[in-house]
Amino acid sequence: MVFEIKYRDLMARIGQIKTKSGSFQTPALLPVIDPKNQIIPPNIMKKEFKCEAIITNAFIIKKNFYEQAKKEGLHDFLNFQGPIMTDSGAYQLLVYGEVDVSSEEIVRVQEEINTDIAIILDIPSSVDATYSEVENGVKQTIKNAKDSQTQRTRDDILWVGPVQGGIYLDLVEQCAKEIGKLDFDLHAIGSVTQLMEKYQFEKLVDLVMVAKQNLPLQRPVHLFGAGHPMMFSLAVAMGIDTFDSAAYSLYARNNRYLTPTGTVRLEELKYDICVCPVCRENSPQELLEKPQKEREALLARHNLYVSLMEVKTIRQSILEGTLWELLEIRARSHPYLLEALRRLGDYSDVLEIFTPTTKPHAIFYCGPETLKRPEVTRHLKKLETFPQPEETDTLLILLEPKTKPFHKSKEHSEIIKIIKSFQEDQQKKIQIATKSTIFGLIPLELEEVYPLSQHIDLKPDLITLQHTTKVITRYLQTHNYRKVIIQVAPPEEDSFEPIRKVCGEKNIDLHIVRVEEDSKRNMEALQKILREATQCEE
Amino acid sequence: MVFEIKYRDLMARIGQIKTKSGSFQTPALLPVIDPKNQIIPPNIMKKEFKCEAIITNAFIIKKNFYEQAKKEGLHDFLNFQGPIMTDSGAYQLLVYGEVDVSSEEIVRVQEEINTDIAIILDIPSSVDATYSEVENGVKQTIKNAKDSQTQRTRDDILWVGPVQGGIYLDLVEQCAKEIGKLDFDLHAIGSVTQLMEKYQFEKLVDLVMVAKQNLPLQRPVHLFGAGHPMMFSLAVAMGIDTFDSAAYSLYARNNRYLTPTGTVRLEELKYDICVCPVCRENSPQELLEKPQKEREALLARHNLYVSLMEVKTIRQSILEGTLWELLEIRARSHPYLLEALRRLGDYSDVLEIFTPTTKPHAIFYCGPETLKRPEVTRHLKKLETFPQPEETDTLLILLEPKTKPFHKSKEHSEIIKIIKSFQEDQQKKIQIATKSTIFGLIPLELEEVYPLSQHIDLKPDLITLQHTTKVITRYLQTHNYRKVIIQVAPPEEDSFEPIRKVCGEKNIDLHIVRVEEDSKRNMEALQKILREATQCEE
Repeated sequence: MVFEIKYRDLMARIGQIKTKSGSFQTPALLPVIDPKNQIIPPNIMKKEFKCEAIITNAFIIKKNFYEQAKKEGLHDFLNFQGPIMTDSGAYQLLVYGEVDVSSEEIVRVQEEINTDIAIILDIPSSVDATYSEVENGVKQTIKNAKDSQTQRTRDDILWVGPVQGGIYLDLVEQCAKEIGKLDFDLHAIGSVTQLMEKYQFEKLVDLVMVAKQNLPLQRPVHLFGAGHPMMFSLAVAMGIDTFDSAAYSLYARNNRYLTPTGTVRLEELKYDICVCPVCRENSPQELLEKPQKEREALLARHNLYVSLMEVKTIRQSILEGTLWELLEIRARSHPYLLEALRRLGDYSDVLEIFTPTTKPHAIFYCGPETLKRPEVTRHLKKLETFPQPEETDTLLILLEPKTKPFHKSKEHSEIIKIIKSFQEDQQKKIQIATKSTIFGLIPLELEEVYPLSQHIDLKPDLITLQHTTKVITRYLQTHNYRKVIIQVAPPEEDSFEPIRKVCGEKNIDLHIVRVEEDSKRNMEALQKILREATQCEE
Repeated sequence: MVFEIKYRDLMARIGQIKTKSGSFQTPALLPVIDPKNQIIPPNIMKKEFKCEAIITNAFIIKKNFYEQAKKEGLHDFLNFQGPIMTDSGAYQLLVYGEVDVSSEEIVRVQEEINTDIAIILDIPSSVDATYSEVENGVKQTIKNAKDSQTQRTRDDILWVGPVQGGIYLDLVEQCAKEIGKLDFDLHAIGSVTQLMEKYQFEKLVDLVMVAKQNLPLQRPVHLFGAGHPMMFSLAVAMGIDTFDSAAYSLYARNNRYLTPTGTVRLEELKYDICVCPVCRENSPQELLEKPQKEREALLARHNLYVSLMEVKTIRQSILEGTLWELLEIRARSHPYLLEALRRLGDYSDVLEIFTPTTKPHAIFYCGPETLKRPEVTRHLKKLETFPQPEETDTLLILLEPKTKPFHKSKEHSEIIKIIKSFQEDQQKKIQIATKSTIFGLIPLELEEVYPLSQHIDLKPDLITLQHTTKVITRYLQTHNYRKVIIQVAPPEEDSFEPIRKVCGEKNIDLHIVRVEEDSKRNMEALQKILREATQCEE
């Protein structure tokens, strides 16, 4: 098996890709090696940076070092004993308009130089391309992909089938479906570099999510040209398993110093904010004073340390089940990443399928985007079909106490005690549930289902109140209660209009019990209403 | 001068504290040195960690090493040539209930061992303490502070006047006012360790902000027992200049591995997510296999690297004017930090006083909390008194275009051109302004004031729409227009009720111009209304 998946969170997976030159763990960043300008030599990538795999460009090798690479083989030529992926020249096609190599040639070249992971010649598109230009590119990519199936002579190489289509999602879908049917070991998603350069992360989310949903899920997916580490977690969360980046060296060329959350111009960096070997040995001032070439090499090393550190942080998050929390943090690196997270939330029902049902950690409320995380979507789906025994006709909705599980809280256990003092058939009439900032409404029977007692939230605000109201309204629509008794703290009531409306429509008897400071009076009021509701004698 | 302030952002400052043993830069983390168990020796703190200053405990030294420390002096005793702060035993008082040293003794001890920064004996309180217990502590602290003024014999030592009062803000205020009147070089805020251990960051914000507002602003302020690096930026943003932390070693003792955003149990750490010297040399697995004592020392070093790195990151943010952005990121480390940021936003008018009016970077929208940042508060204050010439009776509120400054956008320049084609006295009737997600409403004349054209925001959402409406409503209340013409995109109108209301109350003629897909029709509709509004002939 080429790809073995070990852990999942959201659509991300920790896995292992097996090549003829060894295996490597994913998600993986494959640093781009420019054969003409190896700013960090590949053997150092392995030794110092512990990079298990790298990517280089077969087209550039063919143009400049063909005979040598053929003779020595790619691994000796680059001095890297480990998995090497080769790109096909598609990027050069995008930049220069054409490349003087055929699709068949580039298949042969990659076999001849003995690559481990080969990419067929795909046709990327610019973000400004018209629909018909992109459509032609997609057609040609699919043709090249089909042709490659018979052009290939080696089956010890892993073959990558790239998906094109750019911002035209129907083309992305079509391309992914066609390429996915063919015999490829991996897939790749192209035409994203410009989107990332322009910080159009929201469009990137659509593009990747559409591609992923139409590709075979067991195959690893590569993202061409991921740039700044601040967006790696977003890519991985969408199911990107490998990505290449030249950013470490491109940024270094312009004196740009990467951090996990942004970029600082070296001239503006006044403090040693990093503990990597480069920064331990050189203060920002010292770096700045180095000769250009040395400074560039040092900055590239720092940038690569930061980039690889982020990949490890992402893997650790997948393992912990905290990838969404990492996305929330990274989304504050740039507003367009926040926009992208909001967009990703629109695919919550897809993410939900792959997200583990239990996790070792509590879920954090980090802002309105949290309401779209897959665990919330999963709970809302569950509510839709939450069973209602025939005899249950009263829904009692309690305020969220501080203690979890709620039924063990002082507030709720008192109420439960009152209900338990009723006659059995009266007790059965009542369904107890709790309002929840994150989850909207939690029926008592679900309280101990993860993460309904394993989350940390905040006082309700405008958005969470509206969310709670929406969930309660939907629950009332999909169930049949004759009476609803709802505890409210004063500011909440403003957002109750939809609840009143659905109660009116469905002829539900609505009792609102305002919570007063005096908890004894609260209990008496609630008890009175409950007794009346279930027609129970004192 | 003891304290020189060089840069500011929010209430944070980058400064320099001058002691008899040299100066050190702030904000500074002073690692706690336990004289009985120096898990990282003080000379290593200086050499390897570049710590400029440390803190130790005069009470413990008196109990255990009094004669030696007196004879050698604190600096040789600890082998640290640089500024040393000494705590007074107040923490031991809190933990053990009493200490067998008088307030006068501890003043003398600190002079005798030749400390650089001395703290008088203050009386901290537990979070569970009653009002009268805390009140007594405050009285005793103030008495000790007053007494110390004459007990002190050396004026080459910097003296710290601590503020107590715990969660009782009136006591904090009273204590800060009294202590602030006395002759101290620094102040300190106590009784916060338990709040931080319990993640009660919201209460911490109140405590620190009340203390800061009642202390002399030019004196540096120390925070006792800051813990996890994830809250350092919050403390600094409130004007904390120095803080001590033993967390690096306390966490290490329990196999807890610090990250900038959280804590991982070493057993759960599977990836080398850090590039500090310890983590470069030891994988998590290798760390785990070390003997207890060695592992503890290594973890302490890692934890200290992470903690100090965060301090540098904070300094860099102050310099860049991006400290609020850092707070937004760190607030996603834990919901209670987000709650604290919301609370800090309630003090926006105080933060505004100290925040620079221009910054080198654009402001980022990171969520609802951004609407409370001091730059927004500053703008809203400005709007209150924004001058309205007598002849101006029509307010034209345009949609926010993508290009900044707005008047240079295609959309706005077309409209401005139309208005400029009117007769001069008609032109003067119109005040042009733009709706803004972050700033609510931006009159044309303010567009180029920082940061009104230097910010990146997102599509309006429920909260920002409500914010915009509130700002427009307030502007209409504080100004006198006869007509308001307002461009709206369809979903916005739902939140307009308060605008309609104020227009009704003030008898303002309200025109709503719905923006259609056809931009030519938009322009015609707007032109027609403008001409009618200013009674201008075709």
